[in-house]
Amino acid sequence: AQLALERDYEANREIATRMRVLMDLTRDAIVFVSLSSGRISGLNTAAAVALGAKVADLKGTPLSDALRSDTGASALDVLSAAGRSEDSAGVRLTATGSGVELVLHITLFRAAGERMLACRLDQIEDGTQSENVLG
Amino acid sequence: AQLALERDYEANREIATRMRVLMDLTRDAIVFVSLSSGRISGLNTAAAVALGAKVADLKGTPLSDALRSDTGASALDVLSAAGRSEDSAGVRLTATGSGVELVLHITLFRAAGERMLACRLDQIEDGTQSENVLG
Repeated sequence: AQLALERDYEANREIATRMRVLMDLTRDAIVFVSLSSGRISGLNTAAAVALGAKVADLKGTPLSDALRSDTGASALDVLSAAGRSEDSAGVRLTATGSGVELVLHITLFRAAGERMLACRLDQIEDGTQSENVLG
Repeated sequence: AQLALERDYEANREIATRMRVLMDLTRDAIVFVSLSSGRISGLNTAAAVALGAKVADLKGTPLSDALRSDTGASALDVLSAAGRSEDSAGVRLTATGSGVELVLHITLFRAAGERMLACRLDQIEDGTQSENVLG
């Protein structure tokens, strides 16, 4: 059992390292959110820049503080609904910190029994996805 | 110890799930390579598209089969050298399968005692990085 433990610990560390490398290497702004708490559980530097704050200041804070919807609905509700729909269009939200309009693409998933949301925050200036965006 | 094992197993699965979600969510083409074998240990669909083949057909194969350098040096040697240099410029290589020219950005890291290379494969048409590319 001791060996198995060490093996698991190593496998764990390996994939955690890969994950960190990937978060840094991608140009995309990525945020992970726990749906039960509504709080940001992880994000990369690109996401912090898009949200107009620092990684350390955003981690653990409610996603709905960092993003606002023009409709008045909470950002988390809007994103959860979009994640459940089959529609692959992005969701348009505004970064509270920077005032920048973003288009979010969402994946809902379950990890270790917890419901999670991953989102990619695209600047609208990116253009490439603009024909496929909901207002 | 049994509980710790189960906890590690869960943590492992959780981060593996996050990793898979992130690989799908990013628009960037990402490849992980084991430096000891020179083989592709993981890649996303965007990377398979950039390399002109399928994920399943590329996984486990030598990176140097998928990419070639105009200088005649093996792709893996070129990438390892670039990863060790402080230079953040990309490396220009050609996808053997598609003939498409790519600019690769590299991170070398160590995970579970093994030396690994992660690379982002940018299409040259992306433009954004073109002023910072080595020939």
